Amino acid sequence: MASMTIIDIAKICGVGVTTVSRAINNHPDISEETKAMIMKVIKENHFVPNNSARNLKRSASKTIAVLIKGITNPFFNRMIQVFEKEIQRKKYSFILQRVDENQDEIEVAIELEKEKRLKGIVFLGGYFSHVKEKLEQLTVPYVLSTIGMTPEFDPQEYSSVSVDDFKESYKMVDYLCRLGHQKIAILTAPMSDVSIGKLRYEGYKQALADHGIPLNEKLVCCMKEQIESYSMENGYVVTQELLASGEEFTALFAVSDSLAVGACKAIFESGKSVPDDYSVAGFDGLDITFYYHPSITTIRQPVEEIAEETIRILFDLINKKMTHAHKIFPGELMIRDSTIPYKE
Amino acid sequence: MASMTIIDIAKICGVGVTTVSRAINNHPDISEETKAMIMKVIKENHFVPNNSARNLKRSASKTIAVLIKGITNPFFNRMIQVFEKEIQRKKYSFILQRVDENQDEIEVAIELEKEKRLKGIVFLGGYFSHVKEKLEQLTVPYVLSTIGMTPEFDPQEYSSVSVDDFKESYKMVDYLCRLGHQKIAILTAPMSDVSIGKLRYEGYKQALADHGIPLNEKLVCCMKEQIESYSMENGYVVTQELLASGEEFTALFAVSDSLAVGACKAIFESGKSVPDDYSVAGFDGLDITFYYHPSITTIRQPVEEIAEETIRILFDLINKKMTHAHKIFPGELMIRDSTIPYKE
Repeated sequence: MASMTIIDIAKICGVGVTTVSRAINNHPDISEETKAMIMKVIKENHFVPNNSARNLKRSASKTIAVLIKGITNPFFNRMIQVFEKEIQRKKYSFILQRVDENQDEIEVAIELEKEKRLKGIVFLGGYFSHVKEKLEQLTVPYVLSTIGMTPEFDPQEYSSVSVDDFKESYKMVDYLCRLGHQKIAILTAPMSDVSIGKLRYEGYKQALADHGIPLNEKLVCCMKEQIESYSMENGYVVTQELLASGEEFTALFAVSDSLAVGACKAIFESGKSVPDDYSVAGFDGLDITFYYHPSITTIRQPVEEIAEETIRILFDLINKKMTHAHKIFPGELMIRDSTIPYKE
Repeated sequence: MASMTIIDIAKICGVGVTTVSRAINNHPDISEETKAMIMKVIKENHFVPNNSARNLKRSASKTIAVLIKGITNPFFNRMIQVFEKEIQRKKYSFILQRVDENQDEIEVAIELEKEKRLKGIVFLGGYFSHVKEKLEQLTVPYVLSTIGMTPEFDPQEYSSVSVDDFKESYKMVDYLCRLGHQKIAILTAPMSDVSIGKLRYEGYKQALADHGIPLNEKLVCCMKEQIESYSMENGYVVTQELLASGEEFTALFAVSDSLAVGACKAIFESGKSVPDDYSVAGFDGLDITFYYHPSITTIRQPVEEIAEETIRILFDLINKKMTHAHKIFPGELMIRDSTIPYKE
């Protein structure tokens, strides 16, 4: 059942594991004779040693890690279920590792890779703006799932599965413009963001431009950095400020559904109504957008398909069936009760 | 840095790891001389072998597993964050393992215990109705967190942290009765449930009885077994059926907030209003109950405190500071906009 390990080789050779490790790694502290004997046994047994000396003290494991930024985002819950199912189907084990907002996920991945001897990594969510040199420190295959990358990144350097955040965001804002709205606020990521937040904001700007609507920076509302990003609380607080500013708007596009829910609450609390006073739209396709009252117009990301494709690509990489792949799924504009045509 | 392993002992002795393992485990296939030599080396080096032969091929790990039923329940997200932080603070590593609704969490735990060489386990959520003999198969300390146990279980046999599900449920239904409601429906677990669902249902029955209100079984609505339990969808579908049944009621108590959100949606879709036509109350204290429109009356469970105490007890058990402990936190009745006094 289990494949041969270095421990088995050591046993056959009648030497310690460290000696076998030295033979494999051309370590100076081993006689040529012992080394030749060990290499002969390795060859006879078709044993494939692992590359990393650090790994030699560990037994073989087949583990995939999913590194997730923002585990409280319900968007990821369904994806995690799919990851787990698919990874188990491949007879691999599954580690779920949360990464804090202020943690560097590559550093976490490098540590985990050493510690758990991973076969592959899925990065889920978050901003991804690491330099190429850093990404190269990862020695196992990885796939970025629902992480938008800015165009500066060479697609030859990584694999990814996501929707086209620019295009889907454009689709939503274009829809709001077609409803006759001209004063459309956006709840988006801080301008320092270079990932999905930026892409969705760029889609907003382009849609406005294509409808001949000048950008009003007073309607560009960034999430608070001190509050959990993309959360209901963040949408609530930022929308309260927007309403208090007195700047006129008739529609609001939030770059996540949780932000949109928070925005609706702030509007209701101010004595105004969704959609009669303000149309509100979100992004992601969370269940709550259906169950909210009114139901919230959103872009549904096909989470199950994205998760399944992520694992398919990861295993193709592990099995060296390809070098890199990028898969983009279409989102779906779900028109619900929170958006209505502009009224004079 | 790292403590001595069996691999180091094998090296010192000039034998294979398996030989060391045989010496430690009194395996017949080892000569008395070799065994004596190895045991001498072990003693000289103050090496503490692990008990399980299966473990001998693995390097030392200090790992806590959190086994969670229903990872899609947002109630657990915040708890998981706390678990992770507290476990890392103890310099242990952390495995999050999801258990399917139809999986036996004890069997999953036993497998994981062998596989990952755990030091402790947290069981999070779900029904817990295993026989004592099964629980005894767990050889590492464990704590049940937010899992209600029926009184048949001897508290001497396990440790737990939770709210008093019976009492908190009683508190909510008592509050609805004091608002003048007599026809109070409940959305609850299937009657086969023996855990928190049962406890919350018992609290409902007792509160009705204490207010002299006879139980109307037509107002006892059980979640659908084929839909994810405690979910918005389940609350939605079951409430649609209740409304369609024509059975009169003026208030509805859902045993989870997600169920309550689904119930509100079904009521709005039927052309009725919350709270004007029906008062609706939930249980858990999810963020969404604040952001929903109307905001939803609920019992807030102190999730951070529950999670912290769970880890504190687990490490006390690991460090043999005690045998078993049970900690019950009070919930808080959060009166919001979804419940109003009964109107003729």
